[in-house]
Amino acid sequence: MKATVMYGAGDVRVEDVPDATIAEPTDALIRVTRACVCGSDLHPYHQMERGGAGTRMGHEAVGVVEDVGADVRTLSVGDLVVMPFAYSDGTCEFCREGLPTACVHVGFFGTGMEGIGGAQAEAVRVPQADGTLFKLPVGEDDELMPSLLTLSDVMGTGHHAAVAAKVGPGKSAAVVGDGAVGLCGVIAAKRLGAEQIIIMGRHEDRTALAREFGATDVVSERGEEAVERVRGLTDGFGAHSVLECVGYEQAMDTAIKIARPGGAVGRVGVPQDETIPASLPAFFKNVTVSGGPAPVRAYMEDLLPDVLEGRIEPGRVLDRTVGLDGVPDGYRAMDDRESIKVMVRP
Amino acid sequence: MKATVMYGAGDVRVEDVPDATIAEPTDALIRVTRACVCGSDLHPYHQMERGGAGTRMGHEAVGVVEDVGADVRTLSVGDLVVMPFAYSDGTCEFCREGLPTACVHVGFFGTGMEGIGGAQAEAVRVPQADGTLFKLPVGEDDELMPSLLTLSDVMGTGHHAAVAAKVGPGKSAAVVGDGAVGLCGVIAAKRLGAEQIIIMGRHEDRTALAREFGATDVVSERGEEAVERVRGLTDGFGAHSVLECVGYEQAMDTAIKIARPGGAVGRVGVPQDETIPASLPAFFKNVTVSGGPAPVRAYMEDLLPDVLEGRIEPGRVLDRTVGLDGVPDGYRAMDDRESIKVMVRP
Repeated sequence: MKATVMYGAGDVRVEDVPDATIAEPTDALIRVTRACVCGSDLHPYHQMERGGAGTRMGHEAVGVVEDVGADVRTLSVGDLVVMPFAYSDGTCEFCREGLPTACVHVGFFGTGMEGIGGAQAEAVRVPQADGTLFKLPVGEDDELMPSLLTLSDVMGTGHHAAVAAKVGPGKSAAVVGDGAVGLCGVIAAKRLGAEQIIIMGRHEDRTALAREFGATDVVSERGEEAVERVRGLTDGFGAHSVLECVGYEQAMDTAIKIARPGGAVGRVGVPQDETIPASLPAFFKNVTVSGGPAPVRAYMEDLLPDVLEGRIEPGRVLDRTVGLDGVPDGYRAMDDRESIKVMVRP
Repeated sequence: MKATVMYGAGDVRVEDVPDATIAEPTDALIRVTRACVCGSDLHPYHQMERGGAGTRMGHEAVGVVEDVGADVRTLSVGDLVVMPFAYSDGTCEFCREGLPTACVHVGFFGTGMEGIGGAQAEAVRVPQADGTLFKLPVGEDDELMPSLLTLSDVMGTGHHAAVAAKVGPGKSAAVVGDGAVGLCGVIAAKRLGAEQIIIMGRHEDRTALAREFGATDVVSERGEEAVERVRGLTDGFGAHSVLECVGYEQAMDTAIKIARPGGAVGRVGVPQDETIPASLPAFFKNVTVSGGPAPVRAYMEDLLPDVLEGRIEPGRVLDRTVGLDGVPDGYRAMDDRESIKVMVRP
């Protein structure tokens, strides 16, 4: 089968690899009908050292179940499913508490974990299939497919940022970052009732989309200027809820500084530093810092009806579609900010 | 009147200073009947540079109202009151939200703020008296006085750590630090229903008191060894709630590393560093970091009945009593770990 393999910074190839197969009785095999390229894929695209055996890429998919292991109970061949970026057993105490990304059997697709493939491929082996895969009540070419695909990561991740930032009715929310996750964060903040939603970014096409998703204000400044602007928009105090959707130190520093006393920062951008900045402002303002890898599997049940009924349209962040052979150019297009997020149709 | 003034590291003096007086119509003047020395007073005791005009020390008091400004509505001469470490108007939106330490008129006693004195003195001027002072239903020599005095800071602060760490019935809690705040954190964790309470400290007299307050386990190791021990005590996962009651980087690093996935760290030790360590473990475990200067004024109503009815005895952390002239030696005794916390009877 064909799959995407990264060999080093900037070196993404689509190659013939051995077919994915069932390896454990709890596995399922899915034929990928939609995948995408993630902002987090750009970190290795910038930094990966050459010389390794290559990493299978991609962790977001919708697909059709082609085979199941002997112990799989809830899935059948032919089911259309969303595959979240992490697999989980669905039964351990962390899964039961709604945190499947801390499952005792957790693993992450498209990260080079041994024996675990990637979703930017024709097929993928899915461990812990019963706990991991989420069955969809539509056909594989449903027009809602882009939005359904975002449940595998970015929509659930934006929602997690909003939940961690304690967004609620009547509150003000600021979203740091205008990438796909930030834009989904706007959708999530609106959906959870935020009255004021400030998008912080400097790409006009993206902030325009953010406004369509419900953003009320755009702040294109950075650093201290951004802090002043947000304070000016929020009675001088800052935002109740800040969704940090970037992961770089400056973004986190800004996020803490624009939070209102007693407010919360929900961070979902994968941190690129060992420490959290702005400890003293966070402390003296009693600002909560929360977040992490989003338990997107646990959020699917909640978000699905809003997608099916058209109340949210996160699929609009997928503004370019490629075939598998177009994946390397898809990475380039996202890295060059030509595309917000690239969808893959293998 | 006599008051405590710090002139530099290790240099604490009790001196004659001008009498405290009413300066604003919202002020009250209280005669201090009990004060104490705080662990946070030891930071300037270690670090203060010489050469300044001196800082009036002390931010915890019980006292009798001796005079009130023209606009004070709720207090009368003769009332016995607790003075929390911060003053607040009681009416702004932060006060109404339960965060008086972010009051738009906030100020902090005993920190050298202009015109604001300290509590380790015969008397103190209290701005925003209506919002700040909390009237007690007992006499000034009531035997519960030590416990009532802790409502001014350490008991409320330990409670804040527990609240920020989301302590609840059936959960496991770990308390980093066996000082007065850590010990009050144990009381708070027990009071909020924690099933397992691990105290982390190496002073046997203090950990023994922690056990009397409800600690179920003592961990005297530090760093990675401490992390291993706590994991061993908590099914390998770590504690649901971690109360960080120290403020140094290593304590915070340990606090995050002993938190269970999905757990929370409530930090109340005044941070001595610009950054929060262990960003990546916090992120990948979805650990929440919260806390800050405790809104002790907002907690008094809730904690008072438990003190009055003897269900909690935080006053036991006050293990030495001195007169005003004994304050300098009180600092020394706390710094030498001869005393957990020193009470002052001016």
